[in-house]
Amino acid sequence: IDSRLPQVGTTIFTVMSRLAQECGAINLSQGFPDFNADDVLFERVAHWMRAGFNQYAPLAGVAPLREAIAHKVAALYGTAYDAETEITVTAGATQALFTAVAALVHPGDEVIVFEPVYDSYAPAIELQGGRVVRLQLAAPDYRPDWDAVAAAITPRTRMIMINSPHNPTATVWSADDLAHLAALTRGTGIVIVSDEVYEHIVFDGTRHESCARDAELAARSVIVSSFGKTYHITGWKVGYVVAPRELMAEFRKVHQFNVFTVNTPVQLALADYMADASRHEGLAAFYQAKRDFFRTALGGSRFELLPSAGTYFQLARYRAICDEPDTAFVERLTRDSGVAAIPVSAFFADGRDERVIRFCFAKNEATLAAACERLCRV
Amino acid sequence: IDSRLPQVGTTIFTVMSRLAQECGAINLSQGFPDFNADDVLFERVAHWMRAGFNQYAPLAGVAPLREAIAHKVAALYGTAYDAETEITVTAGATQALFTAVAALVHPGDEVIVFEPVYDSYAPAIELQGGRVVRLQLAAPDYRPDWDAVAAAITPRTRMIMINSPHNPTATVWSADDLAHLAALTRGTGIVIVSDEVYEHIVFDGTRHESCARDAELAARSVIVSSFGKTYHITGWKVGYVVAPRELMAEFRKVHQFNVFTVNTPVQLALADYMADASRHEGLAAFYQAKRDFFRTALGGSRFELLPSAGTYFQLARYRAICDEPDTAFVERLTRDSGVAAIPVSAFFADGRDERVIRFCFAKNEATLAAACERLCRV
Ligand SMILES: CSCCC(=O)C(=O)O
Ligand SMILES: CSCCC(=O)C(=O)O
Repeated sequence: IDSRLPQVGTTIFTVMSRLAQECGAINLSQGFPDFNADDVLFERVAHWMRAGFNQYAPLAGVAPLREAIAHKVAALYGTAYDAETEITVTAGATQALFTAVAALVHPGDEVIVFEPVYDSYAPAIELQGGRVVRLQLAAPDYRPDWDAVAAAITPRTRMIMINSPHNPTATVWSADDLAHLAALTRGTGIVIVSDEVYEHIVFDGTRHESCARDAELAARSVIVSSFGKTYHITGWKVGYVVAPRELMAEFRKVHQFNVFTVNTPVQLALADYMADASRHEGLAAFYQAKRDFFRTALGGSRFELLPSAGTYFQLARYRAICDEPDTAFVERLTRDSGVAAIPVSAFFADGRDERVIRFCFAKNEATLAAACERLCRV
Repeated sequence: IDSRLPQVGTTIFTVMSRLAQECGAINLSQGFPDFNADDVLFERVAHWMRAGFNQYAPLAGVAPLREAIAHKVAALYGTAYDAETEITVTAGATQALFTAVAALVHPGDEVIVFEPVYDSYAPAIELQGGRVVRLQLAAPDYRPDWDAVAAAITPRTRMIMINSPHNPTATVWSADDLAHLAALTRGTGIVIVSDEVYEHIVFDGTRHESCARDAELAARSVIVSSFGKTYHITGWKVGYVVAPRELMAEFRKVHQFNVFTVNTPVQLALADYMADASRHEGLAAFYQAKRDFFRTALGGSRFELLPSAGTYFQLARYRAICDEPDTAFVERLTRDSGVAAIPVSAFFADGRDERVIRFCFAKNEATLAAACERLCRV
């Protein structure tokens, strides 16, 4: 078989979760909570199922959920999106990103991404015949170099894909970063795809700089978010996209023939659940406590903890432990120490390895405590 | 914006459902039941949510569901698929078809489809740079002409997409049709994508001729099915793909970066629900009764009913009523007579119009009776 993605294997998240399970290791690799979501949410899903809302939703999503999203985005970031024409519910953020690329990138178009980059971006671009233009950010601070971005932009640049709060580095872009981005793309045909799935998980009073904060930038941005990350339901696979009408029209052309629409009772339940804004407003403090607990518990270890400004991830350098490649090190950590993590080299096309690994701290304190005890012995 | 799908508008199903709603018409257009699914299924979803199974499933789907699918396919069609490597759960059949095309069709490849064709097929092919080769079937019997198929095959033919039981024509391919298909593709690199979402809805004792009945044909087939159609949950958007290991490996490369995986508690609930085979075994009789009721109730109308051998659709010619184009006719039918239907010209790229429309009879008898009363007055 002549593969369309010859260089692609199984995503690192699946590889590491599988290894963790095989070894009975504590799984701090793939990003997901080990605590349950809210019973209220389950009750709402059960309600809508029993009430008979089990057939196709409108292709953009049920109206109450789109309206709840519009309301939240306007309240938080100040941009008014039209629920009818500018918001679409998706089968997770990954599907939203894949569909945005399929809808907007023509063969030969260039798409700029920042490495370390989430592993779905490049294959999505390559599948459409797009050319991935990679800009590397480096440990420990992973700051973008805006001169390098300016230099990477060509007349073929169709899209820039960004992600803040950032997976895997846990960095958060500043208002200044967004201003640079806006300035560089003003008056061009470049579309920003902004992966903001961790929008509600930003620490130490920093605020999330959504592309939706700047109406002028928002007018050329496709913003992607996720209910999985916000409500502890990564396995439900529901996310959404907001974008100006013209971009959304193109998005929906592909969306309707990709997944068509998303689980109806789940959408209706999420609409109910969103009514209480404290549910997403409380998330940053909730995860900040976990981050602090995790970092404190690792204080006695030989891992060097990089800053974690947002997301539920924590990067760690292990120079003081050994000089093994990060892929070998996480495998050994999983097998011998019983804690699974993600090697950050997996997010670089050239596999560059700064001896940094990623832990997920979206776990109960007991889990984190047990993991840290093991990690302190490494 | 330079559209990637300039010729594509909003899917006809959305257009007609919207019009039906606007007009308060009985909606026999988009295919979905107006009765509820089984409480037992809802109870199982609620159970798995409460039990805490709300995080990412494995990318191919939860093991119990893949095993239940393997068991069903082996029991019905005799081919053993390996649940680990040859079965993947998808976010509906549409996503399965889209992903199969994205994974297997290279730019410049030709894909043969039979018109009238489900409206997602051609855009999915075109988006990958594939060339759609269309063979037209004609009312009233819509039989494939295997000499024409043979003539359409070229060295560039990469895929043939088939669909039986067929939407919208309600025809069912015979063992002889499948034998022709097998003979024409034997020893070629052609992949069959077989959309079998109505596999359990075949009438009058006819049997469904799955590509999985013939091990030799199955070895080059990607078979797609749907839980939505089988369990009255079209809005849950869960389907599956079975394919030999090498094809499935390519499918999963794209699947993992498109939707990654599918709602976990729903998958676990479906695994439980599949344990009772009578649930899909009883479906043909259940819908045959509806078909017979609907056809009988339309006996006094001026519609000419074509045969309905499977699916929950019924085609009708309206030559005796008027000579309006079918798009105009369904609009008038919706507005003036209060019954929405689908114009079959929407399934032809050249819009060819044989004055045939499609009704969905997946409805309560009361709905069907009310619709027929209106249709008899047309
Ligand atoms: C799609 S599984 C991976 C979840 C995740 O976003 C991560 O671990 O980075
Ligand atoms: C994807 S909505 C359409 C449902 C359906 O398959 C049909 O009506 O033919």
